[in-house]
Amino acid sequence: MNETGRPQDFPLSNPRADRVRKVAQLAGRPARLKRSEFLAEGPQAVREALTLHQKRVAAGEPGVVYEVYASEACLDRHPDLETLAEGIDAYLTTDEVLAAMADTVTPQGILAVCAFLDVSLEQVLDAGPQLLAVLCQVRDPGNAGTVLRAADAAGADAVILTASSVDIYNPKAVRSTAGSLFHLPVVLGADIAEVAAACRARGIGVLAADGDGDVNLDTLQDENAARRIAGPGVESLFALEGPTAWLFGNEAQGLSEDELALADHRVAVPVYGAAESLNLGTAATVCLYASARSQKA
Amino acid sequence: MNETGRPQDFPLSNPRADRVRKVAQLAGRPARLKRSEFLAEGPQAVREALTLHQKRVAAGEPGVVYEVYASEACLDRHPDLETLAEGIDAYLTTDEVLAAMADTVTPQGILAVCAFLDVSLEQVLDAGPQLLAVLCQVRDPGNAGTVLRAADAAGADAVILTASSVDIYNPKAVRSTAGSLFHLPVVLGADIAEVAAACRARGIGVLAADGDGDVNLDTLQDENAARRIAGPGVESLFALEGPTAWLFGNEAQGLSEDELALADHRVAVPVYGAAESLNLGTAATVCLYASARSQKA
Repeated sequence: MNETGRPQDFPLSNPRADRVRKVAQLAGRPARLKRSEFLAEGPQAVREALTLHQKRVAAGEPGVVYEVYASEACLDRHPDLETLAEGIDAYLTTDEVLAAMADTVTPQGILAVCAFLDVSLEQVLDAGPQLLAVLCQVRDPGNAGTVLRAADAAGADAVILTASSVDIYNPKAVRSTAGSLFHLPVVLGADIAEVAAACRARGIGVLAADGDGDVNLDTLQDENAARRIAGPGVESLFALEGPTAWLFGNEAQGLSEDELALADHRVAVPVYGAAESLNLGTAATVCLYASARSQKA
Repeated sequence: MNETGRPQDFPLSNPRADRVRKVAQLAGRPARLKRSEFLAEGPQAVREALTLHQKRVAAGEPGVVYEVYASEACLDRHPDLETLAEGIDAYLTTDEVLAAMADTVTPQGILAVCAFLDVSLEQVLDAGPQLLAVLCQVRDPGNAGTVLRAADAAGADAVILTASSVDIYNPKAVRSTAGSLFHLPVVLGADIAEVAAACRARGIGVLAADGDGDVNLDTLQDENAARRIAGPGVESLFALEGPTAWLFGNEAQGLSEDELALADHRVAVPVYGAAESLNLGTAATVCLYASARSQKA
């Protein structure tokens, strides 16, 4: 931002400019991987990206936002974004340029080019996590983003995606996280057997969410409640209040037999009605909230 | 089905035929409204449609499936569908014809033309429901379908959509229900004030899911658990185990002040992490499962 209060006096207006093309390429995985950059689109995502950026910079760490592109109308509606963009390369653009840069059909007036955020499994485990969500071969970007947002809401400490999962930096996945991607660490390309072994070595219980599971989540919750009231004498299969990693499987096939075998228990979310199964987002929500309630109680 | 075991000897193969065009029109709302018909696509949805159809016919009621179109390969993979289609006009088609009929880019080999399923508010209330999900001005078909599926899983007795909500017969909404649309009654075009008044008149509590709500869902659950253990002497704001209608608002704006004013309480789903809010499906899942657990305990 310059001293006139607006990033520059004249907006970028040529949708065929090189700079515009370079940003637009980030909708595709090859450009993202090559440059280790991705797009955050819309006021909510950009606000969370900028907030994390400023927090990191204030702590002497590298920032996460490289460039911000915004229409004047958007900055008028969201003046806080201009303040948050302090110190970052920011450019006023026309709506036409934003449309050419953005992945969405109706861009929301602002986007940011961000640095990859993922961290190593060790970094996550060294921080002593209480609640982890592990996505195994999840293929749909909307589902992955929704689970990440639910994990954030449930207070999970990190989300781990295995290799052959969808790219969390896919614009649709980023959108589905509604900013949560900037709230909690993600680990990408993990090996599920390594994750399970590393969790177990650190005393983190491993539960598999499985429609055919032999342990009912209600039972675990009831045992937890009983133990809270009657004390540690109550027998229980699994201490839901202890550190826990939940494994969630592919949206169509669920967890494979090999993946299920890595868990301490196969836990079924109760279906009270006639639904044959739960969708991934619903199942993950119920499991993670059950853990959160037990852990925070 | 004829006696050769397959609907006919030669498949429908002309994607420009009148019959194909008529089915394809059901992807659009005008044709659906004019004919009171909608499309169920894919083996899972068609299986649930046919199961409901046969149950109704066996009970002497009108069926729900008018026509089934399927590829030979699909029937080979799902022989149960052929049995279920007994007595229904069923046609073998080429993949090209299915692609021309279906709303999806990759049709799943089978689709059914179904009769509208919605019932009146009175029908739902006369059945003495314990748990209702009311969607107010929900706009996204995927969200509406996801909530309907979650409501089915939670054992809700019906889903009510207000006027100006998305059309639940939209193909994307139908797909998102994963067959649940055929499991529980839906009421369409309801007036939210009438719903609230009718519920209250029948002793059904009305709760609004509201991020800014002054009552925490955890508190209601804890009070419910305490009452179960200590008996009815425990004071509580709301009897979560009693008949309950949950109001869920528009995905972007939530419930309006007018809608919120109709509820007995404004209930917030706890956010344990940094997420600013929950998406509609996540919020509805947590609320409906909290009620289900309290009611079935």
